[in-house]
Amino acid sequence: MTPKSPPERLLSRLRVVLCRPSHPGNIGAAARAMKTMGLADLALVAPRRFPDAEADARATGAVDLLQTARIVETLDAALADCLFAVALSARPRDLGPPLRTPREGAAELLAAAEAGPVALVFGNETAGLSNAEMMRCQAAVSIPANPAFSSLNLGAAVQILCYECRLAAFAGAPPPKAAPLASPLATAEENAGLLHHLEAVMTATGFYNPAQPGRLLPKLRRLFNRARLEKEEINILRGMLAATEKPTGHGRRG
Amino acid sequence: MTPKSPPERLLSRLRVVLCRPSHPGNIGAAARAMKTMGLADLALVAPRRFPDAEADARATGAVDLLQTARIVETLDAALADCLFAVALSARPRDLGPPLRTPREGAAELLAAAEAGPVALVFGNETAGLSNAEMMRCQAAVSIPANPAFSSLNLGAAVQILCYECRLAAFAGAPPPKAAPLASPLATAEENAGLLHHLEAVMTATGFYNPAQPGRLLPKLRRLFNRARLEKEEINILRGMLAATEKPTGHGRRG
Repeated sequence: MTPKSPPERLLSRLRVVLCRPSHPGNIGAAARAMKTMGLADLALVAPRRFPDAEADARATGAVDLLQTARIVETLDAALADCLFAVALSARPRDLGPPLRTPREGAAELLAAAEAGPVALVFGNETAGLSNAEMMRCQAAVSIPANPAFSSLNLGAAVQILCYECRLAAFAGAPPPKAAPLASPLATAEENAGLLHHLEAVMTATGFYNPAQPGRLLPKLRRLFNRARLEKEEINILRGMLAATEKPTGHGRRG
Repeated sequence: MTPKSPPERLLSRLRVVLCRPSHPGNIGAAARAMKTMGLADLALVAPRRFPDAEADARATGAVDLLQTARIVETLDAALADCLFAVALSARPRDLGPPLRTPREGAAELLAAAEAGPVALVFGNETAGLSNAEMMRCQAAVSIPANPAFSSLNLGAAVQILCYECRLAAFAGAPPPKAAPLASPLATAEENAGLLHHLEAVMTATGFYNPAQPGRLLPKLRRLFNRARLEKEEINILRGMLAATEKPTGHGRRG
């Protein structure tokens, strides 16, 4: 067996996550769309009906992706090891991640895939993604569409985004990189750990009242998503938080 | 020089022609894909089953395109008034028209649409277009795909090409705006205030030793520069820090 070429290896690191899909036919169509573009990693969050003969029928030659698909209960579980996640969104959300074109989003995903697994996240056919799910993602893409009828079929939306990712993977020039990272990016799980730690400290100090949560946590999540924290930064911030919980007082004065 | 037509008018001059489609569901999916991208002119060459309930079901909100679709016996009849036609082809044909990428083909189509009707031509799900049909077209496009599984669903292929046509039509238009900021960006002074506050808290808790500063402060500055903090975020973070200095203890437990 020949080694994969770099673009194919990058595409293999791209996970498609379908959140609460209602129609098994769309799961099959998504699998087919993925495979035609060289993707293989499918995760299903709480599908209504799966496995299902209709999914197999619409997948045609991509039934293997359905057989290896991971089924999980939450988006957090689907994204646990991911370094970067891009959500499909029909509209900008209040406090949501920054909105990109599919082309821009694909370039960002492929650049991030150089370091490890990344994800494309799609919502339910009718309701889309919840705001809480959207906040788990570091960027959002919106497919340009007819304002009078912008309702793309789920499989068709997966097809467009996988197509843009294939183009980005095979584009001659690598997409422009941000300043080199000092440390690898943190995973979704590490980011969640930081937020839980912050919440605990803010609750203990009285800055945050869980009984009246308001929008404090979504605002912090939005900030950290935008910053795309590195592992070392998470360690620094959590060390700082731990020190406020148990001060050693080296530097305490007055 | 005449002014360019508005993007919507150009898209309305773009006809999608499906040659001998076998599955009415794919006709419905194609209609939906077209309408989401602002196209409305559908022509069907000798469809096996049409009209059909399955076509209506898959079209969802685009049934109007099915109702106004023209049904003809030959590709020549479907293209009679067209100035330019682009065929979808999975492979280059001997003596066939020149092969383009979808992006190039869309740009050519939209340029030609300045003068009148143009067409995108798709073949049968299994057999594709015949050589004779291909020769009726002035250009061909091939969708980049996984060589091991290049079989796109017909509706998905229509979706990609209509999407590229919409992008080409709106290429001159201003790009969509980024998600609005929740609050204005903080000034350099406000950012410096946050860093000083952090330094004081970290020193008081013993996490930071000013006598051995290391690279902790530069790392935090780099993080906040990257995040481009908003005024409100600075207020939240400083409120949080102040609470660790003087906990009110509302939420303290155990």
